[in-house]
This record gives sequence, structure tokens and C-alpha cells, in this order.
Amino acid sequence: RPVREVLFFPSRPCCIEALLAEAAEPGVPARPCPCPLPSADTALIRLVRRLLSARRSLDLCLFCFSCPQLARAVLLLHRRGVRIRLATDAQYMGLHGSQIGRLRHAGIQMRHDQHSGYMHHKFAIVDRRMLITGSLNWTTQAIQSNRENVLVVEDAEYVKAFQDEFERIWEEYNPANYSFF
Amino acid sequence: RPVREVLFFPSRPCCIEALLAEAAEPGVPARPCPCPLPSADTALIRLVRRLLSARRSLDLCLFCFSCPQLARAVLLLHRRGVRIRLATDAQYMGLHGSQIGRLRHAGIQMRHDQHSGYMHHKFAIVDRRMLITGSLNWTTQAIQSNRENVLVVEDAEYVKAFQDEFERIWEEYNPANYSFF
Repeated sequence: RPVREVLFFPSRPCCIEALLAEAAEPGVPARPCPCPLPSADTALIRLVRRLLSARRSLDLCLFCFSCPQLARAVLLLHRRGVRIRLATDAQYMGLHGSQIGRLRHAGIQMRHDQHSGYMHHKFAIVDRRMLITGSLNWTTQAIQSNRENVLVVEDAEYVKAFQDEFERIWEEYNPANYSFF
Repeated sequence: RPVREVLFFPSRPCCIEALLAEAAEPGVPARPCPCPLPSADTALIRLVRRLLSARRSLDLCLFCFSCPQLARAVLLLHRRGVRIRLATDAQYMGLHGSQIGRLRHAGIQMRHDQHSGYMHHKFAIVDRRMLITGSLNWTTQAIQSNRENVLVVEDAEYVKAFQDEFERIWEEYNPANYSFF
């Protein structure tokens, strides 16, 4: 049955170490994390689990990406050979705490807009099959403090609409098309 | 067939006068608007049309509401007797250009949070039947300049999840529950 899930935030602070360890080395029992945070079933844990289900590709279209936990999940997928593309907003990517530089440094493909308007989307597409979208910017503040929603939709019609939007943006943000004047 | 629609922004500037006139007095031919803007089939026009389809209720949960065109659509529904409830963010409702005061002045029920975290949702529920949600804040800047998405979903499961979230927020933001210290 196709995934249909709605996540609401704020999410309680939680530990995602066990989840990351299991994704890095499936089948190997994770060492218990010494941190005091619970690894309970929070909205953040569910979001990370959906992301970590990627096997071939992850397309990210994110206004703001400063949550280190989500960055670690993306880096893990990158190391596992998942093809990651990240489109983001030029005015926000350099803000304090942004994870964009870290991801780029690790070799993840990244493109950004050249406009004064914001690239304000906050969506991810897993394996061209599952759409994750909503109001949530990928920041710790949003995850832990704000009222937010995220829809997880495994529906060909919705996924296609967002995949097409992603490809349009990816092409438009191609550095070969930059103008310098 | 249930509505399933994805709207992408930015939307070209457009005139919604004909749409509002038709909604105010159905069947009466609208006088042509003298403004030079097209009344073409834009994402904004589609969004307004979905809102104007409300017959009984409109529940709004909006971080930011400063677009005068969308405010006019909401006021029109209010005058038509549609029961409108608006939950919004305390830190953003007083910003320059906010339409919240105007709506409240017209008699629309409004509630806001009392927290430092943002009420960052951007969704509407029409007649407890149709969910309109996405990245789009209800501002002219977002509509005309940003890359944004809005999903229109007539699906009982998704609508129920958001309706329940709305009722939780509405109760939590009840002024009877305010603390003053």
C-alpha cells in the first residue's frame, strides 16, 4: 500500500544515532548512544526514516538547510552511493549554521537561484517515487519550536508534478546559464 | 472525481475582479475591469477560485497574511455567511501590510499563539472537505516573486489530519487559556 503520512511539528528533541547506525551498517546491532535524549517515535525520527529509505536518488529543493541531524542523514546516503541533487536559495545558503557548504564539500551536487525572489520550496523526492513536502524548513528551530506540517505522499501524479518542477529548477539554476552583469 | 491539483508559483500579476464579482453576485455579468492586468488562468486565480468555492466554512492556519487580493476573497466569503476561523502567528500578524487587523475588524474570528516558536503552517480547509497546503505564505511577494508550491487535496484522510491539527491549535490559542506573566 502506498505511503500516506502526515507529520506535525514541533518534534521533541530526540537522538537519531541508532537510526543512522542501522542505515550505515544494516544488520549490525548499534551500540547504545550515551546521550540522554530519547530515541522515541517522533516526527523527526519518522522524517529521517523516510529519507534513509532512498536507494537510488534523492532530489532536494530546500529554502533553508541548517539542521545538522538532517545533514548527517543526507551525507550518509551520499556515502552509500545514492545520487543526491540539492537546489537551494542563494540568499539563505550562506547564513550562519547553514549545512550547504558541508554537503557541497562532501561532493554533493548543489545549485542555487540567481534571483531576488526566494527559492521557498521545502520538498524532497526519494527514488523519484515518494514526495516529502510541507511548511517545514530543514532547521533545528523549525523542527523543535515551530508548528509545521510535512506530507509524505507516494502518488505518481503528485510526485510527477514536483519532479517536473525540480527538473525545471535544476536546469534554470545550471551555472552555465548564469549571467554576470 | 475528487480535486487533486498542484499549483506552482510565482504567478504572473493578474486581475481577480471578474472572479470576485462573479462570486459576489453569481449570474450577474461582471462589468469589465479597466485595469491593464490580464485575468488569465494563473496559479493565483486558481487558488482564489478554490477558496471561493467555500459554502459553509473556511479554516485558515496562516503564518503570514498580507496579500490584499486574498484578503478580499476571504472578506467576500465572510459577507456571504461562510464561517471563517483564522489562526495565525503572533509575531507576524502585526507586521507592515498584514491583513489580519482588517479581517478582525470585519468580524472574522481570529486567534494567535503565545509562544516564541512560529505558527508556521500555511494551510486552509474549505468546507471541512478540501485541503489547501504548501510552502506559500499569503503575501504578494511570495505569490509574485518566489518559487512556491500549493497542493489542493480532496482526500478524507489528509483533510482529517489537518482538521484535527487545526482544532488542537484553535483550542490551544483560545484567549481563555492565555497566561499573563
